[in-house]
Amino acid sequence: MSGIASETMAEHFADRLMAAIAERNSRVCVGIDPVPERLPSVLHPPEGRWTERSISEAFEEFCSRILRAVAEHAVVAKFNSAFFEALSPLGVGLLDSLISTAADLGLLTILDAKRSDIGSTAAAYARAVFGRYPADQGAVPDAVTVNPYLGSDGVMPFLTEADDLGAGTFVLVKTSNPSSAELQDLDAGGWPVYRHVAELVKSWAEDRVGESGYSSVGAVIGATHPRQLAELREAMPQCPLLVPGYGAQGGAAADVAAAFDADGLGAIVNSSRGIIYAHAQERYEKRFGPDDFDRAAAAAAEEMRRAINDAIDV
Amino acid sequence: MSGIASETMAEHFADRLMAAIAERNSRVCVGIDPVPERLPSVLHPPEGRWTERSISEAFEEFCSRILRAVAEHAVVAKFNSAFFEALSPLGVGLLDSLISTAADLGLLTILDAKRSDIGSTAAAYARAVFGRYPADQGAVPDAVTVNPYLGSDGVMPFLTEADDLGAGTFVLVKTSNPSSAELQDLDAGGWPVYRHVAELVKSWAEDRVGESGYSSVGAVIGATHPRQLAELREAMPQCPLLVPGYGAQGGAAADVAAAFDADGLGAIVNSSRGIIYAHAQERYEKRFGPDDFDRAAAAAAEEMRRAINDAIDV
Repeated sequence: MSGIASETMAEHFADRLMAAIAERNSRVCVGIDPVPERLPSVLHPPEGRWTERSISEAFEEFCSRILRAVAEHAVVAKFNSAFFEALSPLGVGLLDSLISTAADLGLLTILDAKRSDIGSTAAAYARAVFGRYPADQGAVPDAVTVNPYLGSDGVMPFLTEADDLGAGTFVLVKTSNPSSAELQDLDAGGWPVYRHVAELVKSWAEDRVGESGYSSVGAVIGATHPRQLAELREAMPQCPLLVPGYGAQGGAAADVAAAFDADGLGAIVNSSRGIIYAHAQERYEKRFGPDDFDRAAAAAAEEMRRAINDAIDV
Repeated sequence: MSGIASETMAEHFADRLMAAIAERNSRVCVGIDPVPERLPSVLHPPEGRWTERSISEAFEEFCSRILRAVAEHAVVAKFNSAFFEALSPLGVGLLDSLISTAADLGLLTILDAKRSDIGSTAAAYARAVFGRYPADQGAVPDAVTVNPYLGSDGVMPFLTEADDLGAGTFVLVKTSNPSSAELQDLDAGGWPVYRHVAELVKSWAEDRVGESGYSSVGAVIGATHPRQLAELREAMPQCPLLVPGYGAQGGAAADVAAAFDADGLGAIVNSSRGIIYAHAQERYEKRFGPDDFDRAAAAAAEEMRRAINDAIDV
């Protein structure tokens, strides 16, 4: 997919993100996390035996139909690398192709890879995300997620590569999972660890602020922690927030309201399983047939869009 | 590479690792981190223009010759996923094939992927590492590295998958890079954050101790922090230590001595660039021709083996 970057990513990441939120009046990020067992039965292989090829084909149909269906209700598609790596090497090509599909549908894309390593290796990861060997191989996402445990030199190579492309980076600050407190909430001199991480992220963000007032360096903060979300929104006023954990993980619209600024900008809220597997939820199962998993996903995305907009009164 | 697991990995990871260290009297882990620019000139393409195919072929020749040359001096080959992801999708197949080559040469293998995510996604990553869809696709490494920032539920899926295979997991505790202190050294109630992480790792390790007295759950601690290495060796007596940062990053044999127990067991020390790019170092450049990069790597590995053994007096 060489050329995607230069064609569509000249503008500053945060400016593109905030413009898309305003234009579509949506703050929904759809997480594309396919697993064979949870695909709708119409996509299962005839004999029930999965092969690498049949999984790849089923993932492709599932994900591309979901993307087309949710495109008008969402602003961002977030692809979790894990689910495609589990199907490598076919998964790599599929991920590239789906990132392109999402971009063609007008969605911004995030590669949720949560990468981290020492500087020289982080540079190789940044290369893997934003344009592979020999040059500009692979689809280029609009942003990537990284893990901060190694500190600045593990994050900088991502920021530098992203800068060149007008892309963005979301750093894990306070994650949505139940055991996030074990490390992230340790009290270090009156501040939890995640608050120290937020200060680092803030410092990386300051040099990278676009016309929207937001930086290309953002933060990941779970919807499952509404109090911390409010605290961190205030602590990092220039950082776009990627808020996962809505829906299946328990976050509700009221919980994420604090992520947004007074104009309803500054954040996107992710739901993965709650949208892409909506077809298996009782409330949608009744309304849609087994082949209408994409319409169920669209309904769930639209419902989420409205619930968040209602909660922040935009 | 279906079947590798069942054929060679029945025994407990730590027992296999300690037996290999004792048998070969080596504590050397060779890091396989190929980048096109640093390959010996004899492997560069004729016109100097890299293509995806020519990089893949050059990586394959470079890495497999290095593996064959260092196999008698080292115990473990550590493959850093980043450098192969930067060449995806060809990199995925190459990584699989090199893990198999290393295993055939009698080396244990570590996939240095530093993965982390919430539980359901960590399970997909564990799947990607230890046997892909539909079942047992891809080469299975003996161990994987993971990042602890998300806490227990981000790590558990790796431990569970590893348990089933007799494989191991190394958790980042105190990394070798210059900015590791930013988060890892924050003082949290009298202990630095990395020490709290060590306690978590210790608790995960306790249920997984083999006959050697070591657990299948280990820790990554940089050679660049000799004081912390001694502190953590004592704090986590059952954890095998993976000690990166030797050589190019500045760690010396005396710095890593504290990683070992009284029998000279319990740890492996990694050097990547210092071994695989030895051909470009002045001291080896004089002794070996430009095509003898593998012999230069073998000489560097053997020198490292002896320097460490001298430092711990075994």
